[in-house]
Amino acid sequence: MREAIDLKSKLAAFNDPWRPRIIGEANGQYLKLARAEGVLEWHSHQEEDEVFLCLEGRLVLEMRDQEVVLEPGQLFIVPRGVEHRPRAEPSAAVLLFEPSQTLHLGGDGGPRAVEVEDQEWI
Amino acid sequence: MREAIDLKSKLAAFNDPWRPRIIGEANGQYLKLARAEGVLEWHSHQEEDEVFLCLEGRLVLEMRDQEVVLEPGQLFIVPRGVEHRPRAEPSAAVLLFEPSQTLHLGGDGGPRAVEVEDQEWI
Repeated sequence: MREAIDLKSKLAAFNDPWRPRIIGEANGQYLKLARAEGVLEWHSHQEEDEVFLCLEGRLVLEMRDQEVVLEPGQLFIVPRGVEHRPRAEPSAAVLLFEPSQTLHLGGDGGPRAVEVEDQEWI
Repeated sequence: MREAIDLKSKLAAFNDPWRPRIIGEANGQYLKLARAEGVLEWHSHQEEDEVFLCLEGRLVLEMRDQEVVLEPGQLFIVPRGVEHRPRAEPSAAVLLFEPSQTLHLGGDGGPRAVEVEDQEWI
């Protein structure tokens, strides 16, 4: 018996920012939920486009040549190879859709990077 | 200059049910918006999982062995090969995420089938 996935219920299951949780898989892509607070590191994904759909709060996607502001019900696709730095003002919740092999911070590492195998399903 | 995609604004651009519009592409997958009213035909997609995120109204995904009710903020992934019949009660708006080659009614045709090449970007 498969069930509907309720985004609000899933979001209620965690509070830590910048640590996406996987909620589903389709065609080799993961659906993930993430909370955001403040600023993440600059990074890019060489082979993966990354879809951000804002669910709560306000998320700014800084890129080197522009920035895009997302409020609930707004989405943006960061194309592969484009450096970006997500920034929440002051916090946000987002639905991500990206290939399952996508590295959290594009492989640049750093203390907040989550390894692919450490990603948690909720 | 790339811009945020506002789902409500995009939805305001069309009214006809069961005719998905493409709003973005990422990793060979299309993001589509669709309006739904009443019942669509039974069909399946042999090679493609199909993500439905309900944005407005109420969408029931009938499958042969169960049905799943989606209200705003709820999503469901119909796995490839699983016969399904979407039904809106009485109407709904959904965000779809599926491979770009996905046939509208799984290739079964019928008067409401939209050919891949006839899909409209908005």
